[in-house]
Amino acid sequence: MEWETLYARRMGRVEPSPIMALIRVLSQRPVINFASGLPDPAGFPVKALQEAAAEILAEDWRAGLQYGEAEGYRPLREWVAADLTARDVPTKAEQVLIVSGSQQGIDLVARAFLQSGDVVLTEEPSYLAALQVFASYEATARPVATDADGLDPDAAAAALKQSRVKLLYSMPNHQNPAGTTLATNRRVAVLRAAAAAGVPVLADEAYLHLRYDAGEPAPLAAADPEAPVLTVGTFSKTISPGLRVAWIAGPAPVIARLALLKQVTDLHANSFTQRMVHRYVAAGHLPAQVAHLRAAYREKRDAFLRALERQLTGRATWTRPAGGMFLLLRLPSGQSATGLLSKALDQGVAYVPGAAFFPAGGGEGTMRLNFVSPPLTDIDEGVARLARAIG
Amino acid sequence: MEWETLYARRMGRVEPSPIMALIRVLSQRPVINFASGLPDPAGFPVKALQEAAAEILAEDWRAGLQYGEAEGYRPLREWVAADLTARDVPTKAEQVLIVSGSQQGIDLVARAFLQSGDVVLTEEPSYLAALQVFASYEATARPVATDADGLDPDAAAAALKQSRVKLLYSMPNHQNPAGTTLATNRRVAVLRAAAAAGVPVLADEAYLHLRYDAGEPAPLAAADPEAPVLTVGTFSKTISPGLRVAWIAGPAPVIARLALLKQVTDLHANSFTQRMVHRYVAAGHLPAQVAHLRAAYREKRDAFLRALERQLTGRATWTRPAGGMFLLLRLPSGQSATGLLSKALDQGVAYVPGAAFFPAGGGEGTMRLNFVSPPLTDIDEGVARLARAIG
Repeated sequence: MEWETLYARRMGRVEPSPIMALIRVLSQRPVINFASGLPDPAGFPVKALQEAAAEILAEDWRAGLQYGEAEGYRPLREWVAADLTARDVPTKAEQVLIVSGSQQGIDLVARAFLQSGDVVLTEEPSYLAALQVFASYEATARPVATDADGLDPDAAAAALKQSRVKLLYSMPNHQNPAGTTLATNRRVAVLRAAAAAGVPVLADEAYLHLRYDAGEPAPLAAADPEAPVLTVGTFSKTISPGLRVAWIAGPAPVIARLALLKQVTDLHANSFTQRMVHRYVAAGHLPAQVAHLRAAYREKRDAFLRALERQLTGRATWTRPAGGMFLLLRLPSGQSATGLLSKALDQGVAYVPGAAFFPAGGGEGTMRLNFVSPPLTDIDEGVARLARAIG
Repeated sequence: MEWETLYARRMGRVEPSPIMALIRVLSQRPVINFASGLPDPAGFPVKALQEAAAEILAEDWRAGLQYGEAEGYRPLREWVAADLTARDVPTKAEQVLIVSGSQQGIDLVARAFLQSGDVVLTEEPSYLAALQVFASYEATARPVATDADGLDPDAAAAALKQSRVKLLYSMPNHQNPAGTTLATNRRVAVLRAAAAAGVPVLADEAYLHLRYDAGEPAPLAAADPEAPVLTVGTFSKTISPGLRVAWIAGPAPVIARLALLKQVTDLHANSFTQRMVHRYVAAGHLPAQVAHLRAAYREKRDAFLRALERQLTGRATWTRPAGGMFLLLRLPSGQSATGLLSKALDQGVAYVPGAAFFPAGGGEGTMRLNFVSPPLTDIDEGVARLARAIG
């Protein structure tokens, strides 16, 4: 059977992730790993999750092991709505759909809105796995000029007016891969331009809570609650990614359509792990957990930035994230991060070459560095190895 | 913002499930419910799952709460491969992808192979939620003549030769909604015709294990291990649907492509509940659990069939499933099951009108009856109420 000839056309746009391939290679090499996309498992709240799992299987197993509603577990939807409301995004439970990770949130929104030839505006650089989703629906990602304060509002406004633009995808807070945050004074302008152009904004708030600088981070939608924003959020970065619990929030009629699509896709999110997450947050554990993660990750970020300053000042530049998991380092002009990788691995350190995060090409001189995943004690040595590789 | 104008064209084919709407209404009415699609929660192996969850959170939480591989948890893939091999479908772990419920298995296969205008051959009647998937990719479901022994092989062979046929979707064992099983002596002919036509077969084995008549049921792929079959199987009907653990098995290169698509869709299946299911099956619990379910469900099926014979002989006809969860009842010519529903609800009994399961229309005189979900003691009374409604 000639299977290759049978695939739908869209499969020509579904390609292996260069990061996933790299991560698989790395798992077999004893290197200091700045390439990972993973949070630090030391931050998982194991004891509280043990209690939650045991309670569900003692008291609520009839529902916790059974099929559930496509929209998700109602008390969790209510909790998300209340939390968003407290963050100045007035939201009702009907405006929340529970999904299996924020990747699925991005995929469902793309599946609902994108068809062949459509254009998605993104930051530059942007989240690789979101770019892969847009490609899989035969859409084109078009980057908008982005600096240390995130999207340039004038460039965004101009780009939003172009034809076939169907979506603006942004990670407003501590984005992947550069760690940048859309400045407060740019947010209203970006949202108004999207509203004026009739283009929905997909705000990916995966890293919202991971803030290490002063101030409580705000979801993009809070800048203008009337703006056409679909917000994707997740418990992966605060509680556990393996439980696959995330959410989409937006206008109730859109959420109802996305819930139909969720049902077609995989019926509903995991009944058991939705309840684990709900018991965890309903018990009030999240604020202390977030504070704990912030303290631990802040210490690592600070150590990482200090090590970079010590080792690489004058030989490279890098972003200084207020939060998140990643920073982007830029090599001197003409150097390729892809070309440097095998030398770095020989030195015993790994990173992700940044080119894949640039939807229109470029970025060959950049690399993504995960500063939260390695143990604190490895950071100095890892950056020293990186400096030796850069030479 | 005029969201309705912004959706992709495919969303015109994503419609509410009439069953889901009905089930929601029913949850508020005190009726004997033959409409459910749910297994009986009394069959959930709660104690063993408590142990599995506690063990993972004590011993394996670093991986069980972390991101995982797109292909799924390797030991579970190996277990599925060994189980299929023991059922005469020689399979390696590389040929298994773990998915979030068999609904996602169907959706991923459809997303990989179907595009606008393609045709999917199905049984008549067929599983509604699969028909919804095919529609969502703008494909057309075309039913093949089906009798008490499943697909008619001659009709299937003729249909497979038609243009734009991209997939043959079958539930070979104890299908939803009629409970019929593709007869052993038809299987090779159907698979050879598909191979000759170059059309993949998607075999949905969700109800494989739920066999109440004599004989161990065989997966369709066992009839010809060389045939172009993608098999979808699940732990939803044997262990728990709420854990959302299922699998696709097929040729390794196709599984690799589907794993890429899985990664784009939602990264990977639930790390925690994959491990719960694996611990459960690796501990050897499944054979006793299946035997327990078979005994309990057999008793209900037998009671249901006896009640139908007593109450409705001469006034309706119905299928006599060798297994599964459902049977299909056919009213006398001219009567509509949709029309009868409010009368049945007034009598205090619910069912699903069958028309939605017939992809090319028809079936107005049929209803789907779930014989495993209601308590055994409700079956006689429920069928008596149904008989009064039919009059």
